[in-house]
Amino acid sequence: MDFTLGSADTEWRDRVRAFMDEKVRPRVADYEAQQRDGERWKVLPVVEDLKTQARAEGLWNLFMPPSHGATPVDASFTFDGPGLSNLQYAVCAEEMGRILWASEAFNCSAPDTGNMEVINRYGTREQKDEWLKPLMDGEIRSAFLMTEPDVASSDATNIQCRIEKRGNGYVVNGRKWWSSGAGDPRAKVAILMGKTDPGAEKHKQQSMLLMPLDAPGVTIERHLPVFGYDDAPHGHMEIRLDNVELPGSAMLLGEGRGFEIAQGRLGPGRIHHCMRTIGAAEEALDLMVKRLMSRTAFGKTIAEQGVWEERVANARIDIEMTRLLCLKAADMMDRAGNKAAQGEIAMIKVAAPLMALKVIDDAIQAHGAAGVSADTGLAHAYASIRTLRLADGPDEVHRRAIARLEYKKHR
Amino acid sequence: MDFTLGSADTEWRDRVRAFMDEKVRPRVADYEAQQRDGERWKVLPVVEDLKTQARAEGLWNLFMPPSHGATPVDASFTFDGPGLSNLQYAVCAEEMGRILWASEAFNCSAPDTGNMEVINRYGTREQKDEWLKPLMDGEIRSAFLMTEPDVASSDATNIQCRIEKRGNGYVVNGRKWWSSGAGDPRAKVAILMGKTDPGAEKHKQQSMLLMPLDAPGVTIERHLPVFGYDDAPHGHMEIRLDNVELPGSAMLLGEGRGFEIAQGRLGPGRIHHCMRTIGAAEEALDLMVKRLMSRTAFGKTIAEQGVWEERVANARIDIEMTRLLCLKAADMMDRAGNKAAQGEIAMIKVAAPLMALKVIDDAIQAHGAAGVSADTGLAHAYASIRTLRLADGPDEVHRRAIARLEYKKHR
Amino acid sequence: MDFTLGSADTEWRDRVRAFMDEKVRPRVADYEAQQRDGERWKVLPVVEDLKTQARAEGLWNLFMPPSHGATPVDASFTFDGPGLSNLQYAVCAEEMGRILWASEAFNCSAPDTGNMEVINRYGTREQKDEWLKPLMDGEIRSAFLMTEPDVASSDATNIQCRIEKRGNGYVVNGRKWWSSGAGDPRAKVAILMGKTDPGAEKHKQQSMLLMPLDAPGVTIERHLPVFGYDDAPHGHMEIRLDNVELPGSAMLLGEGRGFEIAQGRLGPGRIHHCMRTIGAAEEALDLMVKRLMSRTAFGKTIAEQGVWEERVANARIDIEMTRLLCLKAADMMDRAGNKAAQGEIAMIKVAAPLMALKVIDDAIQAHGAAGVSADTGLAHAYASIRTLRLADGPDEVHRRAIARLEYKKHR
Amino acid sequence: MDFTLGSADTEWRDRVRAFMDEKVRPRVADYEAQQRDGERWKVLPVVEDLKTQARAEGLWNLFMPPSHGATPVDASFTFDGPGLSNLQYAVCAEEMGRILWASEAFNCSAPDTGNMEVINRYGTREQKDEWLKPLMDGEIRSAFLMTEPDVASSDATNIQCRIEKRGNGYVVNGRKWWSSGAGDPRAKVAILMGKTDPGAEKHKQQSMLLMPLDAPGVTIERHLPVFGYDDAPHGHMEIRLDNVELPGSAMLLGEGRGFEIAQGRLGPGRIHHCMRTIGAAEEALDLMVKRLMSRTAFGKTIAEQGVWEERVANARIDIEMTRLLCLKAADMMDRAGNKAAQGEIAMIKVAAPLMALKVIDDAIQAHGAAGVSADTGLAHAYASIRTLRLADGPDEVHRRAIARLEYKKHR
Repeated sequence: MDFTLGSADTEWRDRVRAFMDEKVRPRVADYEAQQRDGERWKVLPVVEDLKTQARAEGLWNLFMPPSHGATPVDASFTFDGPGLSNLQYAVCAEEMGRILWASEAFNCSAPDTGNMEVINRYGTREQKDEWLKPLMDGEIRSAFLMTEPDVASSDATNIQCRIEKRGNGYVVNGRKWWSSGAGDPRAKVAILMGKTDPGAEKHKQQSMLLMPLDAPGVTIERHLPVFGYDDAPHGHMEIRLDNVELPGSAMLLGEGRGFEIAQGRLGPGRIHHCMRTIGAAEEALDLMVKRLMSRTAFGKTIAEQGVWEERVANARIDIEMTRLLCLKAADMMDRAGNKAAQGEIAMIKVAAPLMALKVIDDAIQAHGAAGVSADTGLAHAYASIRTLRLADGPDEVHRRAIARLEYKKHR
Repeated sequence: MDFTLGSADTEWRDRVRAFMDEKVRPRVADYEAQQRDGERWKVLPVVEDLKTQARAEGLWNLFMPPSHGATPVDASFTFDGPGLSNLQYAVCAEEMGRILWASEAFNCSAPDTGNMEVINRYGTREQKDEWLKPLMDGEIRSAFLMTEPDVASSDATNIQCRIEKRGNGYVVNGRKWWSSGAGDPRAKVAILMGKTDPGAEKHKQQSMLLMPLDAPGVTIERHLPVFGYDDAPHGHMEIRLDNVELPGSAMLLGEGRGFEIAQGRLGPGRIHHCMRTIGAAEEALDLMVKRLMSRTAFGKTIAEQGVWEERVANARIDIEMTRLLCLKAADMMDRAGNKAAQGEIAMIKVAAPLMALKVIDDAIQAHGAAGVSADTGLAHAYASIRTLRLADGPDEVHRRAIARLEYKKHR
Repeated sequence: MDFTLGSADTEWRDRVRAFMDEKVRPRVADYEAQQRDGERWKVLPVVEDLKTQARAEGLWNLFMPPSHGATPVDASFTFDGPGLSNLQYAVCAEEMGRILWASEAFNCSAPDTGNMEVINRYGTREQKDEWLKPLMDGEIRSAFLMTEPDVASSDATNIQCRIEKRGNGYVVNGRKWWSSGAGDPRAKVAILMGKTDPGAEKHKQQSMLLMPLDAPGVTIERHLPVFGYDDAPHGHMEIRLDNVELPGSAMLLGEGRGFEIAQGRLGPGRIHHCMRTIGAAEEALDLMVKRLMSRTAFGKTIAEQGVWEERVANARIDIEMTRLLCLKAADMMDRAGNKAAQGEIAMIKVAAPLMALKVIDDAIQAHGAAGVSADTGLAHAYASIRTLRLADGPDEVHRRAIARLEYKKHR
Repeated sequence: MDFTLGSADTEWRDRVRAFMDEKVRPRVADYEAQQRDGERWKVLPVVEDLKTQARAEGLWNLFMPPSHGATPVDASFTFDGPGLSNLQYAVCAEEMGRILWASEAFNCSAPDTGNMEVINRYGTREQKDEWLKPLMDGEIRSAFLMTEPDVASSDATNIQCRIEKRGNGYVVNGRKWWSSGAGDPRAKVAILMGKTDPGAEKHKQQSMLLMPLDAPGVTIERHLPVFGYDDAPHGHMEIRLDNVELPGSAMLLGEGRGFEIAQGRLGPGRIHHCMRTIGAAEEALDLMVKRLMSRTAFGKTIAEQGVWEERVANARIDIEMTRLLCLKAADMMDRAGNKAAQGEIAMIKVAAPLMALKVIDDAIQAHGAAGVSADTGLAHAYASIRTLRLADGPDEVHRRAIARLEYKKHR
């Protein structure tokens, strides 16, 4: 056991950190200006520019794990990225997470990362050529169509979207929402989860399809704001699917294997979110401390007032503990595989957003009214991270899974 | 001691409740549509329409307490409203608070209520004719310019806005922000706090002026969003004051008496916010329970799952306790005056927002992703109430005041 | 609605408060010395002395409500106490609760109070003559034998103690524990809950018997400490019942009516505990503030350090809110009856101990190591109140009941 | 970075674990019987027996770090123990911590461990021969006399105990309390902190002396219970020092160097407590899960009830995170020294007891009334760990230190 980050672990992180400080952070104002002005669902030049620079430096597709935890379905074209371990990626993702939109500059943003992993592992050569390649090149973006508005999606067997076999192909009908990233004009493809066989056993009813977002019958009905933020141009969309016809080649892995893919997909994706969340908490703590040290009330700096010493200390303690759990989960995935780490993955999925929300909320309080405005980024970070207590399964479902692992030890 | 609301207490509440259910709630969709479409800083017809109806029913200016706790400076024109006690108003305000924007329909919304109280109590006959009358008639609206961007406003002695005597009048220079309501085209006047004599003793340096918002030198620089909400057309504005010239008659009460007014102003205003906050928590609990009962996961309704029973029970307990504290504070103000109730006012100022944020956050969690969107109103309620932990003094300042009252008992 | 305690409400409280300050508090050292020296399960002269004085002053059996909420089974001898309402008693009980053992001086201590109410309401004239009279006179004490060691007693249908009919009488076999007060040599009688008919419908299987504690077959096997306290001479006992023979006249109300009695018994008893708990919290806050003001660290009193201002303020807020909920529950019992108040009773049962434990824990922290010792009484108060989250049903069961009342409103 | 415990890390732990399971756990009943019967302040044969066995297996003095972080004052006799790193010892200490009194069997119990470290590092050859050798052999025990009853010991400059030079020796006057372990008849020596020069600069006033506990003038006045537990025969004593005469050779390191020694002493000692605390939390979680799975209420096992799934999951998450922080602190001490790890040491000192108290409290709740009794050991563990929020500095002081480290980064 060794708690020191070795040089192999820090090399990539330091490069990402430097890029963040030197290239991304100075462009935050540009990003906000470009986002604010004119049409909201558009490509932001600042991001495209940063992507070019990051790719040129080799800071590109860092997320893609070397082995994917399994042999890909079609090995004739696979992509390994620059070969970072999950742990090495974790410390990079934390740096990216300090600025809400920064991960896209490295082609490391959700939901593309998870989608690319899925296609890399479960896709045919044809599927990879069509969708994986442009995704890896950062030319297109993608969406993941899982959650539905009319059912408790925490129980994935509730999914109602219907995929019917017709001839060699499929016809899709249903309604999805919280399809994040589908607002982006570059979003060209979605991975869609639906039911092919409602009569099959519970975990064999679902399948996943690759669906072009411009297929006839796909209608983006509206965008869903998060605490007032539209998160344009990324966005969270509600999408109606009316008799969308797809060829047989759109099927991933095989009919009835949707659950199997979903489980493989979510593990690393959950960890990526958590890593970034820890970075967001560090950023909030930085902002909080700077603010506390710069303002005076009742004759001394606010930093010196005992109640703030307590909150700063608790923030530091909670960040440290959460980071360690996150890195441990990443390290277990590296050494023992995603399945062995399932308990740790569920734990960090619960722990990281709760920790960050507390730290950010305290940072808001430390800033007074500035904290809830757009001037600090804190309120937006709060809103975004609040969704992580719901996305990929609510806390309650993960806690139940953790408890049941615990019960198993005593059976 | 008697915990039963008597018929005098419930009569007004029941009328407000009926108006909310029959007139306001059915117009929520209209409000949202009118707010969404076109220009954001405009008068919404739906609100004007509801104001006319509420006034016709006598549900108008309910907030104005019968006695104002003191003899007014000029008694030749004063307004007593329909004469509700603070307690009677409290249970009305709770009903209004169930819908974020509803209190305006009753001409009972901040910051107008506090401003009207101030002018009624401290204004001259001339000031009342010019500003109080149209405010009471709902023809104009107003702003309160206290908080400043560059200092810790939690310590009011930090205020930097400069009011200089020039001839018979004053010249104002400074910068204010979080001037809520100043975005509304009907906002015509502001009460402004600034320093007339930086050399005076600490609590005699400040004065309050009545300032027309169209006075030369008043520039609304930008609106400040709360989380992602602009709260248009109300808005929270940042305002620059460059050599704004005001006549001597703009002074309220007298030079150096700004603190004295501020203390009188904030008591009831804090309570009004708290009352509405409790209504917002009740609304959230209603939504939460309905949702839990309507969705099924893992074979039973979510309502039956133990962790949700626990949260619903805690919400009910916390709402009940907070409401009782709020009503007690109101009752003390009625019977013993605002000063006697200062401890209770500070307590409910701390307790009510914290309670409501917890209940609303749980309600969000119960709704899944719908909770953070605009579909339920929960996220917007959360954002609005989050500001109440900062407005009119942050929690920390009120807790300090409460602790010091406690220490005094043992001295 | 009126939050002012009237003179009728405060008269009894002020008398109890004066007795506590002048008679009980000066004897705390005597109590501790008498308790410490020699045999532990003995009568303490200091308590007998205080009882004589309290009775002489009419501060005796204050708990007994005027109407018991129902017509007694045998009205030929009933006892109404001095006629305090539940609310009037509540404020008295709070005063008694400041010192852990003080309520006994007023013949107002558990489990006697609940037992006396039961016999008064459900007992025959004969049962009253035999047991109620000496209990009301403070000559004997009693126990309540409900909880069992081998089952989850939170679900009362789990009770296993067997009551079998034999001839005109009954034979009892089983094991009970947490029979509080059974350690006292004056404890002469117990109310025992057991199953008379395991085949009957779920809530008709149980009956309650009056059982002399010196009946053959009753064996006190051991005392159960609470944390490290034996609570002698009161004690919490584990009792074995081997073929205990009781006459038919021992039956209360009738076979199969145990649940009915239990429900009537627990309401007021729960409230009594809560009232005393609030007094214990007030006492802890007093001690905390005095300590904080008297000790200096790092150049100023600990009271002035911000983190303690926060805790003191939170303690004050939480005590105020909890007291109001408790008084409301008492007032509802007075005005609308125990059944109408069942939600409020459950709420305060959950809220009061949790609140007090937090306040006491902070008070312990404020005292440093002195807080966990016997020097302040805080650790003992913590231990005693910790049991109230379990006694008369654990928090979880009450929260479930509260949630279900909430769900009912939406059905 | 590597989160896998290597074989070097687990070898000692596994031996300790096996000894705990096979030798210590089966003797818990003996321990309790021997402790209960007769005189309380006596040597328990069961512990002496286990010490002999543990020593024979080489499980002895495991705590003693190989390098002590510094060159000892007198290197002619030093002791390195079996050479475990702090990390290796941490995982052993966790195993020992599962049973409250078990660490003594390995000669690894406080305050001896800290005292032995001090003498090993700062003692002269003569001091080592007299006191270190018999301590390392487990023949005698020791006490640490720091805390005083009349001042806030959280600020160590408050210490009042007076050490006056007289001739070649010293005379000590003062009063100490919470001298843990001083109740044991084998306790022969104490390290005492007092003031040699009240006029010196703040951190040079104090010195440490080695004081035989049978020196004339040393009076053990009473034992201090912890939540009712006397913790005999170890005990927490209050000690009066009246003109205790000590030779010049009793001085450790040199006059005015007491603070310097104290700082070196507390680091590892804090970590040892934390390690054991994590073991106590694991034990509580084990007990909780077993109980929840074995009891049924309202038709299903309590384990299946959602609120308990939530608590079990939270316990698992919090234990994992806290353990990682503790191991990181140990690893930093190993690799970078105690000083570099001071932030992490302070953090775990705050985090570990709070975490364990929460887990144990939930475990108590899961057990119903059995949880507060002596049947499970939970209440005793709670009481013992509650003291760790106060011992070696209260939480508040450590949080302040953590905050100040954070502030430094931004200066």
